[in-house]
Amino acid sequence: MNEDEIIRLMKSINKFPAESRLNFYDDAWSFKINNEYFTISTDMLVASTDVVQGTRLECVGRKAMVSSVSDLSSKGVRPKYYMISLGLTREIGMRGVRALARGFSMAIREYGGCIVGGDTNESKDMSICVTSFGTSKDPPVRRGIGKEGDVVAVTGDFGEAAAGLKIMMNEVRDDIYRRRFLRAFLFPKARLAEGVALSRAKVLSGCIDSSDGLALSIYSLIDSDGGNDMGVRLDFLPCSKELERFCSENDLDPLELVLYGGEEYELVAVVEKERWRMAERVVRKVGGRLIKIGEVVHDRGVWLRIGRELVEVKRRGWRHFT
Amino acid sequence: MNEDEIIRLMKSINKFPAESRLNFYDDAWSFKINNEYFTISTDMLVASTDVVQGTRLECVGRKAMVSSVSDLSSKGVRPKYYMISLGLTREIGMRGVRALARGFSMAIREYGGCIVGGDTNESKDMSICVTSFGTSKDPPVRRGIGKEGDVVAVTGDFGEAAAGLKIMMNEVRDDIYRRRFLRAFLFPKARLAEGVALSRAKVLSGCIDSSDGLALSIYSLIDSDGGNDMGVRLDFLPCSKELERFCSENDLDPLELVLYGGEEYELVAVVEKERWRMAERVVRKVGGRLIKIGEVVHDRGVWLRIGRELVEVKRRGWRHFT
Repeated sequence: MNEDEIIRLMKSINKFPAESRLNFYDDAWSFKINNEYFTISTDMLVASTDVVQGTRLECVGRKAMVSSVSDLSSKGVRPKYYMISLGLTREIGMRGVRALARGFSMAIREYGGCIVGGDTNESKDMSICVTSFGTSKDPPVRRGIGKEGDVVAVTGDFGEAAAGLKIMMNEVRDDIYRRRFLRAFLFPKARLAEGVALSRAKVLSGCIDSSDGLALSIYSLIDSDGGNDMGVRLDFLPCSKELERFCSENDLDPLELVLYGGEEYELVAVVEKERWRMAERVVRKVGGRLIKIGEVVHDRGVWLRIGRELVEVKRRGWRHFT
Repeated sequence: MNEDEIIRLMKSINKFPAESRLNFYDDAWSFKINNEYFTISTDMLVASTDVVQGTRLECVGRKAMVSSVSDLSSKGVRPKYYMISLGLTREIGMRGVRALARGFSMAIREYGGCIVGGDTNESKDMSICVTSFGTSKDPPVRRGIGKEGDVVAVTGDFGEAAAGLKIMMNEVRDDIYRRRFLRAFLFPKARLAEGVALSRAKVLSGCIDSSDGLALSIYSLIDSDGGNDMGVRLDFLPCSKELERFCSENDLDPLELVLYGGEEYELVAVVEKERWRMAERVVRKVGGRLIKIGEVVHDRGVWLRIGRELVEVKRRGWRHFT
């Protein structure tokens, strides 16, 4: 039993509708009505797997929405409406539900849109299912790897959320950047402004949000274009000085945290080579960063350049049931 | 902590959008794009509360979808697309997931539409969140009680699913109708053809599906029109001969099962008085039944006529966390 097998089984249930703009394995689904694209994404957060003990319920509520907003962000679509289904334990009480609601409220202040309905249930393991939808004039950006020479870029540093998780789990010594990393883990940002700007500028060959880790995200971009024998060479790891210091103090491999840590919601974008300058500019204009980390190569797989050598990046990251 | 309080809290998070065709408390949400209405509903099924031990996973999967289709049915909208989020226990295994998928498949064969995406998670308490959406030329039917003299009608008998539940729970003696009642409980039908026919014929003042019981459904119709001092007088209980016999053999009150049993997905429709004949006709034409059970009165509350007396029907039925 593994997540990918389950997803393939779900796909096999019915014929996928021809009017779809994104494929079944993409993070959202979309179709066109007249001149508008209508894009929908759904994401479920489950307490026993996705929530570290001791996390405030505000953070949990906010993160449940951020994770769904992030899916739309990678498509370049602004969320307009949300439906939220709750599976709540009795123990949570109204106090807990109010904390969740404050979290939802925070996400709405940050990303816009409004809650238009949902469902409430009792459960032994809290679950929050958020379905987000939005409309856009531009077609939603697909997962995809583009062509040789295209630029692979990300919207922020990686690994700090994973460092935050290690702090939450008491796996490491205290650190002077404790607050920074905890913040990265507890209050991750969806890169909505960046995703929308990149989509509008029509500079992307493909995009994905990186919630399962940088390595797996890049593999997902490659896989979505089937057997086209393309790959990615990484020339630069998006790792902050602070994380490097944290890793050296705690005897951790920054490469491990950056490539496989997960828990971020950065975008991993493939930018058409000749539009790189424009891509950088439009992201800067909305207050974001676009960091070039590598390029698309005609060689299946993901490779990291360390000095003069190319090391293969493992296909590993967060998968359920493993 | 109770379900209604939680729903009110969720409503208070943001301003409800002006373009909405259905209110927040309705079973679905809808807005208009050009000349089409776009209607969405989400429903979560949780194993520990909604699934009786021993239920086959095919039934669970099918029911999760039926429950969402039923919400759209009450709006008169045919489901076109589904997003399904799964929270699965490890114990279920691929065999179990395949059984769930067969259930989804059954529902799709019965009601049309197709699965276009979703999310997969690990959970300690299985949950299935189905978001259904459809488009229609006719505006979605609201919850609402209409005006004095309007006919209150249902699309089938009540109480048999509740009888099936009692059989599943071994609360009653075996019965010659055992298979019939188990079927009503395990394979409830969403009244999609009926709902669509009634909506197209423009004969309804309001409609709801009755998953929380007949009594509560009628109260919900009344409540949704706010303080208009209207109520319902029931002249007839939609109870089959088979259920009457089952109740007498098992020393049960049929009134209890019919009014408060729940677990059905029949429609409770308010038909404009002068359009009753047409309503009956269009439902018959799609192979369904429309049973008149009472009428709208200018007297807040729900009343049942027993002989010459009017007995108040209690506001009670399935509510979470109570």
